[in-house]
Amino acid sequence: MRYQLFYWPGIQGRGEFVRLALEDSGAAYDDVARGTGGMDKMMAMMKGAAEKKPPFAPPFLKSGRIVIAQVANILFYLGPRLGLAPKDEGQRLWLNALQLTVTDFVKEIHDTHHPVGTGLYYEDQKPEAKRYVAGFLDERAPKYFGYFERVIDKSGGPYLMGRKASYTDLSLFQLVEGMRYAFPKAMKTIERKIPKVVAVRDRVADRSGIAAYLASERRIAFNEDGIFRRYTELDK
Amino acid sequence: MRYQLFYWPGIQGRGEFVRLALEDSGAAYDDVARGTGGMDKMMAMMKGAAEKKPPFAPPFLKSGRIVIAQVANILFYLGPRLGLAPKDEGQRLWLNALQLTVTDFVKEIHDTHHPVGTGLYYEDQKPEAKRYVAGFLDERAPKYFGYFERVIDKSGGPYLMGRKASYTDLSLFQLVEGMRYAFPKAMKTIERKIPKVVAVRDRVADRSGIAAYLASERRIAFNEDGIFRRYTELDK
Repeated sequence: MRYQLFYWPGIQGRGEFVRLALEDSGAAYDDVARGTGGMDKMMAMMKGAAEKKPPFAPPFLKSGRIVIAQVANILFYLGPRLGLAPKDEGQRLWLNALQLTVTDFVKEIHDTHHPVGTGLYYEDQKPEAKRYVAGFLDERAPKYFGYFERVIDKSGGPYLMGRKASYTDLSLFQLVEGMRYAFPKAMKTIERKIPKVVAVRDRVADRSGIAAYLASERRIAFNEDGIFRRYTELDK
Repeated sequence: MRYQLFYWPGIQGRGEFVRLALEDSGAAYDDVARGTGGMDKMMAMMKGAAEKKPPFAPPFLKSGRIVIAQVANILFYLGPRLGLAPKDEGQRLWLNALQLTVTDFVKEIHDTHHPVGTGLYYEDQKPEAKRYVAGFLDERAPKYFGYFERVIDKSGGPYLMGRKASYTDLSLFQLVEGMRYAFPKAMKTIERKIPKVVAVRDRVADRSGIAAYLASERRIAFNEDGIFRRYTELDK
């Protein structure tokens, strides 16, 4: 099975949570919109007359004849197939709840630079971003990370689900990496209270598929068009 | 099977999307936190030492021995059991993508009164809310509703998945009801372009389980502590 991933080229964005799962397990896939004519293909699937089940937004994954949109949904599908999720229903639902908590966190991270509207530039909402980010760094980010720390602790560790890594551990790696990029000073403080989360980050970085991916040109660098943006005036 | 739903008492909130599914099919359930000692039970499941898999936030559902958090995840589980989702995997994933788009929309609705922080009162972020809501009512809400309109159209209707109602149709009902409550003037304009969505709202309201529920005391009235709040200064 060769998967086709559709996501905006040029940013890690939400697509990265899917890329990490595919790369970890060495799955064969095309990052369609980064290839020739790929953007047209992607837009046709969203806006075209032919598509009976158009995705609302990237990322989405084509697997054979089915098209799956929404990160947590894609990972729910891929998880057992890539060896990154248990097969038991109750366990899969628990993992999905954790991944949906990642989704919520990602949206709140995105809003650090876009608190009053995705239709406006960051430059047009700087005072609001400054206000938003105070509560985000003092309360929200520590609350989310602290929750994952508690989940790892209760599972017995070293991963969220216990002894075996799951796709949500890969997402947790990405959250730590991204937050370090966007808020290097604030993350130093936050990380003091989440040693188990940081240990997951380190273990994931060492996995052979992930290490190879991070060293490759397929890994797009963090930049100021993505979810995690380094605006020094927002860090503290 | 008697389900136990855990959600904040006093508001419809995100719990309402689950309540509608349970009520539609006449499922037996306890709305735990609205009963005596219920809040303590709910908080113990989130914060207690005994819980091995603590939910991040309400709502969550207890079904036998498993606890399921996150609205879309709960509905994914309940859907086939309540006759509100197909059993085929591809169809279930498509429905889940639609429900996760509802989740995204709900968060953007919530932010109309809390653009710079959940830790602050609305009264402390009124100018920011005013700025946020302009783009929300002009672009985002029409985009989300327009998407669902297109999905109904492509399915052949009258519902999102075609001939049979799903749990996401119940959620769409709630979105229309809530937006009418919060933004009565703006919704008049928006509704002109989404006749199929409005028709879903009407069909859902006529379903016997839903009609009985809406007429009962179990349906909490919309109020200014929930997701959909009527602040006339934000409407247009």
